[in-house]
Amino acid sequence: MNEERIRRQFAFCLEMDKEKNIGRQTYLSDGERKENDAEHAWHMAVMTLVLGEYANEDIDLLRTISMLLIHDVVEIDAGDTYAYDEEGKKTQRQRELAAADRLFSLLPPDQGAKMRALWDEFEACETPEAKFARTMDNIQPAMLNAAAGGKAWSEKGVHLNQILERNKNTAQGSQALWDYSRENFIEPNVKDGTILK
Amino acid sequence: MNEERIRRQFAFCLEMDKEKNIGRQTYLSDGERKENDAEHAWHMAVMTLVLGEYANEDIDLLRTISMLLIHDVVEIDAGDTYAYDEEGKKTQRQRELAAADRLFSLLPPDQGAKMRALWDEFEACETPEAKFARTMDNIQPAMLNAAAGGKAWSEKGVHLNQILERNKNTAQGSQALWDYSRENFIEPNVKDGTILK
Repeated sequence: MNEERIRRQFAFCLEMDKEKNIGRQTYLSDGERKENDAEHAWHMAVMTLVLGEYANEDIDLLRTISMLLIHDVVEIDAGDTYAYDEEGKKTQRQRELAAADRLFSLLPPDQGAKMRALWDEFEACETPEAKFARTMDNIQPAMLNAAAGGKAWSEKGVHLNQILERNKNTAQGSQALWDYSRENFIEPNVKDGTILK
Repeated sequence: MNEERIRRQFAFCLEMDKEKNIGRQTYLSDGERKENDAEHAWHMAVMTLVLGEYANEDIDLLRTISMLLIHDVVEIDAGDTYAYDEEGKKTQRQRELAAADRLFSLLPPDQGAKMRALWDEFEACETPEAKFARTMDNIQPAMLNAAAGGKAWSEKGVHLNQILERNKNTAQGSQALWDYSRENFIEPNVKDGTILK
């Protein structure tokens, strides 16, 4: 047993607890409160177990789920940047890189490097796994927003073109899931005016 | 595209959202509020990525993490039964079985059967993966309870023998993690009287 190693690992595990206090802009399906990053990551991981078969290309489920589990941990330091916050997005990358440096260096170096590589892979969005993870990151909030009657969209006055811009790569991970999301979550809310044209 | 299949899959994914409203008895590390089942499952999944190397036997990480992601979903119907609630534990198994029947049957039959098998595997606690998952299920709250100054233990007047009874199988998944938990999370709280002797 390497005492230093296990201590660093538990220090990282404990630090992760803070992700439960990072709020997002998506309401739970009952519309009562907004979800946090830990709940969001869990939900996407479960959804990947169920919906992974719709990936455009074969994906390694463990790597995809691992990416989804940790991709938002940088928000422990950098905070959640709302998808349509253009000001916040200007400094987002820099804030998140600094957070990744700090957080993954809590781990033993070999493990920190592996986690960092997973995070970098998600950010680069080039592998089939990263593309599918990104699809999940867009489909899950759309599903919840639609279930909550479009509350998150109408409160912020979101326009369809903003949603389409955000989703411009969603079909790269899964054409089938993007089609489903557009037809079942987005278009009905455009039709009834919840999403602005 | 099988429309019926994908509709059932999304119905299950949406139903999962309710797990975020199932409260547990464990405080977050800052002691400010208690965590919910979704946060707990996410935290254990991340911890498995980091601590999986301490499993007594080789484990399949994807199966272990999948089990942890879904093992508490039955509490959507059955509620959380506190580890030291002896009355509640009498009906727990029956309530959870009924919940598993309902929830997993939302999925297409092939997928429902796979998920149910994972849930049954966790419950039976016989495979190396299920044993390790059970270890996580005990180590994660111990870590948080210790970080929060033992608040969850002292509020309920928990005795050391109750904790040892609950943890009687923790070492079966990982001797190293049980030793770490006992030495770093439990014993210091016995010494200072937070956990009753």
